[in-house]
Amino acid sequence: MSSTCLIIGNKKYSSWSLRPWLFARYFNIPFEEIRLSLYVPSFYTQILQYSPSGRVPVLHDAGRIIWDSLAICEYLNETHLAGKGLPSDGDARAVARSVSAEMHAGFAELRKELPLNCAYDKGAVSISDSAQQEVHRICEIWRTCRMKYGQNGHFLFGDFSIADAMYAPVVLRFASYAVKLETIEQTYLETILALPALQAWISAGKAETEVLLSQER
Amino acid sequence: MSSTCLIIGNKKYSSWSLRPWLFARYFNIPFEEIRLSLYVPSFYTQILQYSPSGRVPVLHDAGRIIWDSLAICEYLNETHLAGKGLPSDGDARAVARSVSAEMHAGFAELRKELPLNCAYDKGAVSISDSAQQEVHRICEIWRTCRMKYGQNGHFLFGDFSIADAMYAPVVLRFASYAVKLETIEQTYLETILALPALQAWISAGKAETEVLLSQER
Ligand SMILES: N[C@@H](CCC(=O)N[C@@H](CS)C(=O)NCC(=O)O)C(=O)O
Ligand SMILES: N[C@@H](CCC(=O)N[C@@H](CS)C(=O)NCC(=O)O)C(=O)O
Repeated sequence: MSSTCLIIGNKKYSSWSLRPWLFARYFNIPFEEIRLSLYVPSFYTQILQYSPSGRVPVLHDAGRIIWDSLAICEYLNETHLAGKGLPSDGDARAVARSVSAEMHAGFAELRKELPLNCAYDKGAVSISDSAQQEVHRICEIWRTCRMKYGQNGHFLFGDFSIADAMYAPVVLRFASYAVKLETIEQTYLETILALPALQAWISAGKAETEVLLSQER
Repeated sequence: MSSTCLIIGNKKYSSWSLRPWLFARYFNIPFEEIRLSLYVPSFYTQILQYSPSGRVPVLHDAGRIIWDSLAICEYLNETHLAGKGLPSDGDARAVARSVSAEMHAGFAELRKELPLNCAYDKGAVSISDSAQQEVHRICEIWRTCRMKYGQNGHFLFGDFSIADAMYAPVVLRFASYAVKLETIEQTYLETILALPALQAWISAGKAETEVLLSQER
């Protein structure tokens, strides 16, 4: 294994894996990638060789083991980026951490009803009221961040940050299920979708042949 | 409102509120507390005056609004504690962030089957296999942290840190439902339970008269 190695799941399905992967790629942090097939019988023994949590993503870096998408992003920001993965302004940084944590522990309905699948181009589907409320809240977050903190760039806080990485799987979900957005949110979605690193992830995800029924809708 | 104000839910029930509250109290960060009654009709209008997420906890500090338990702890650590709320050693800090994030987004079965209730002294109850696995994983985390990083003190990483605050609600759950633990985990549990700040929280929680049926077991 090289000195920095990120262990991830299927690119087609693994929303948690995408976050630190995109974050590291955007900032050109060099790392080796190990992809495990989620939920096949060998997954459970393989992942425990890499992570005490039994989950992907997990990062091995210079002898350290760091797991969980948000912790990996904070770690990379601190250790490899000297902080430039979060806004330098204290107000903006506090809000970037708030919206990142809100995503990390929330939006359970949306995750369930709009499963991530890189190969999907489903068009609009019907969702429950609670999932719809979560969509509204995400739009509110994107809009507020872009208008209040993002004017000096194209991302939520101007420059690309942990917050954009945390919301990238939602960008894929909104695109796959053609969720209707106002201009400011749609423009942000297209900015993220156009990132070369994200395009590379999507292509690789589409090329995967494993099918996880729990992730199909 | 004073310059630092933490808005929380019912002390009897609100596990998310307890985390940043205990963290701030342990480190003697002065703050005013505003307690809202969760899920009564007025809650929804009141909380939106304080937090864009519509949830407690939320911190108002010197004109800033920071929400979500984990983001509030990171913010207080950075802004009020000059970093001493996380281990100073890089290895330990990476693991402290990993176990804090694992708690923040995980352990859904345990939360559901062993609801937090400060007034409970239920003794053992039967739980599902998946909740049992989550109990095991928490014990493994406590044991590993105490043995590998905690030897210079009584907490998970020696000194009190964000990680202890994140697991404090689990300490209350394990105590309320008399979850059987090995000595090292039991000792840790008793250390946390004995904290004067946590005792003050529990007494206040017990004195509350509102009943939330969704939180009763
Ligand atoms: N909170 C974790 C969640 C990670 C997670 O749930 N990963 C899934 C795949 S996307 C997994 O590894 N599941 C394996 C299992 O549950 O056995 C994070 O942010 O990284
Ligand atoms: N991820 C959030 C979760 C906060 C949360 O769910 N709080 C609950 C009370 S403990 C709440 O305010 N619920 C109100 C609602 O859902 O309407 C955190 O870590 O602070």
